[in-house]
Amino acid sequence: MKTLIKNAWILTMDEVLTTYPKGMLVIKDDKISYVGEYKAEMEQHVDEIIDAAGGLLIPGMINTHAHVSMIPFRSLGDDCPDRLRRYLFPLEIECMTEPLVYEAARYGILEMQRSGVTTFLDMYYFEEEVARACDELNMRGMLGETVINFPTCDCKEAYGGLAYSEAFISKWKNHELVTPIIAPHATNTNDANALKEAHEIAEKYETLISMHVAEMDYEMKEFRETYDMTPVEYLDSIGVLSDRLVAAHCIHVNEHDMKLMAGRGTSVAHCVGSNMKAGKGIAPVKEMIEHGIAVGLGTDGPSSGNTLDLFTQMKIAVYAQKTHYKDRSLFKAEEIVKLATIGGAKALKMDDRIGSLEVGKQADIVLIETDSVNMFPIYDAYSAIVYSANASNVDSVWINGVRVLNHKQSIFNQQEIKIALQQEMQQFQKRAVERSKEL
Amino acid sequence: MKTLIKNAWILTMDEVLTTYPKGMLVIKDDKISYVGEYKAEMEQHVDEIIDAAGGLLIPGMINTHAHVSMIPFRSLGDDCPDRLRRYLFPLEIECMTEPLVYEAARYGILEMQRSGVTTFLDMYYFEEEVARACDELNMRGMLGETVINFPTCDCKEAYGGLAYSEAFISKWKNHELVTPIIAPHATNTNDANALKEAHEIAEKYETLISMHVAEMDYEMKEFRETYDMTPVEYLDSIGVLSDRLVAAHCIHVNEHDMKLMAGRGTSVAHCVGSNMKAGKGIAPVKEMIEHGIAVGLGTDGPSSGNTLDLFTQMKIAVYAQKTHYKDRSLFKAEEIVKLATIGGAKALKMDDRIGSLEVGKQADIVLIETDSVNMFPIYDAYSAIVYSANASNVDSVWINGVRVLNHKQSIFNQQEIKIALQQEMQQFQKRAVERSKEL
Ligand SMILES: [Zn+2]
Ligand SMILES: [Zn+2]
Repeated sequence: MKTLIKNAWILTMDEVLTTYPKGMLVIKDDKISYVGEYKAEMEQHVDEIIDAAGGLLIPGMINTHAHVSMIPFRSLGDDCPDRLRRYLFPLEIECMTEPLVYEAARYGILEMQRSGVTTFLDMYYFEEEVARACDELNMRGMLGETVINFPTCDCKEAYGGLAYSEAFISKWKNHELVTPIIAPHATNTNDANALKEAHEIAEKYETLISMHVAEMDYEMKEFRETYDMTPVEYLDSIGVLSDRLVAAHCIHVNEHDMKLMAGRGTSVAHCVGSNMKAGKGIAPVKEMIEHGIAVGLGTDGPSSGNTLDLFTQMKIAVYAQKTHYKDRSLFKAEEIVKLATIGGAKALKMDDRIGSLEVGKQADIVLIETDSVNMFPIYDAYSAIVYSANASNVDSVWINGVRVLNHKQSIFNQQEIKIALQQEMQQFQKRAVERSKEL
Repeated sequence: MKTLIKNAWILTMDEVLTTYPKGMLVIKDDKISYVGEYKAEMEQHVDEIIDAAGGLLIPGMINTHAHVSMIPFRSLGDDCPDRLRRYLFPLEIECMTEPLVYEAARYGILEMQRSGVTTFLDMYYFEEEVARACDELNMRGMLGETVINFPTCDCKEAYGGLAYSEAFISKWKNHELVTPIIAPHATNTNDANALKEAHEIAEKYETLISMHVAEMDYEMKEFRETYDMTPVEYLDSIGVLSDRLVAAHCIHVNEHDMKLMAGRGTSVAHCVGSNMKAGKGIAPVKEMIEHGIAVGLGTDGPSSGNTLDLFTQMKIAVYAQKTHYKDRSLFKAEEIVKLATIGGAKALKMDDRIGSLEVGKQADIVLIETDSVNMFPIYDAYSAIVYSANASNVDSVWINGVRVLNHKQSIFNQQEIKIALQQEMQQFQKRAVERSKEL
């Protein structure tokens, strides 16, 4: 199968940020077989020709940190302090079920596809169900079962996630779209042995490990008091700070932490929306990049970030950084689009396969229309994406060569998926409302 | 003409934030004649019944600071330091024409209507053209001609805006939708006499005055060096800090400034997106409100804020404030929706007529659909508006009783307006691109 896309403003996001203002791209099966200037003769011998009508063609966006099955929590207790311990943990233990994780994952995956996200890193419970949803909906996912120091909705024993992960990774490790990983919850919700064991599993299966790091004020205090170390130093001291680690948040990292991370090859999932909404602070992304750390953007769960699109995150990230340094010229729009695409791919060690529009890479592609009222005029395509666009401007999305969004219509039955989720959510919603009243 | 809207989740934004989860609202001609619980008998004797399908019904949003005719600048030099003096002023003087202001205003007004903005305060050149556009497109506008200390695109003499304003205000002062005001550009681009004269004109015609205040670092420095005062203290010293003044930005105001402003009844147009994108800082909105200053939200020009919708501003405002104070519970979602609606109405001294859904007020109403993928689930309607929604979720908009947006379709010919703007923009665009290369 060969698809030719013409009349596109192509931002390849390759190393030198090559663009083709009236470019053409050919998809052959699951890969990109041509990117460049328009060549009329190539219109022969293709199965399908798509006129992008001057729209912006970019690599699929990469959401480096999510808990997509937390859709049922969206808009619940958003302004409530210590929400994790007051809403999220109790409701998860009580009401999160295997079918609810599956239905919420399906819903969230469709939502991400609509917004131009083609790959996401997810950590949650019943992660097997998230993998099933990816397989069903042609979504690229890097998925990890949570490991945590108390019994959860899917494991009766503390740290049950370790055994779950081994089985999960073994089962999915050769899947075309799903990359199984392991996901200890956080530095302060796992003991050293569990973290080490999780890291050994990642090594054994040659995969990644992802966890929340340096996110909470109380986490910082605890590590200072207990070990006289930062969480990053602690992770390094037990051998977990490695090039297999994708550290989410890293709001409270210092110079020494960043040096350590850069030296070890640890990457960062920057979740600026979630962090700012929670009043936690803004991660020093500028310094991270200067240190050579690979940084991607993450939405966090729809509980925390509410939306699963990276347009929102790009906008907040750039506003936050420019304000923090009082410098308008800092983080030019192209730098921000890099974070959402090739930067995310590098953070997930997938940049050999995705993150840019280059021949031989997997065909994960987003077409952003420029007809909507907010998209005119465009002097700078990166600027339009970062400052003018929102998720509703995404016109078409290809994942692994399959067009999953076609002129803003999903190829999947969105209504059926929503109804199935609503049915599975009934018990959860009842308890959620009760809990709001109890607090 | 009587229109009944039923099955709506109504957020009235009245003083006690009354909501009707399954509410009904009746529009009689240009006013709201009923808001409350559903009453079947009221379905008789109406001309039209609209089923809101569980959507959120809120007051029309109020954009308290814009330069809507700057659409031609959008995405131009976004990351360029000192952009005002390097791009905006030179291009305005060279290329901004009367027909371009008109066409850009039409375009921007449609864009605002699509996003749920039903009233905007605007300051620019050829403001007469913006008034014509409002009249034509049924938009509520508070419009002021710019007064500035150099010759502009529409006045050959410095301060020509003063004479323009008198004629402009006289002409439009009894218009149903247009409220003419006067708009000195900024504290540092007008001398004391011009500012005093502008204020006298506002007094003479019993209208408002709006200007940029305490926005620039160099403005702060200049006033400190020249007068040993802040810009706010300076305005007070010349009698311009009054209850007629809507001060835009006010990023750099201190405790004493805020006391003065509160005492004088001066209100603030908070343009957080524009301010953060420019790396200028974040206005102390929490303290302003604590001092009793009326605060609304503003997008600033599409040159600065890129989008003209208040969803973006609400999200950035709440993230910025929570982060600044490291407190998730600060600025609850309902407080933010207040800023975008009744807060804006108070800032513009129009809260007797607009800003909330109450009987007797003008029918400026927004229906936000809850069918889109990002709008589910909703535990808290305010939260959904602030954290989950974007401009594309606006389904219908009424201004002064007229439905200008109907299931996401404008009643005006958007394509014709865009083509007309593109034609008028040709010369501008050519110079804009040249200038980018010169810099
Ligand atoms: Zn997380
Ligand atoms: Zn302005």
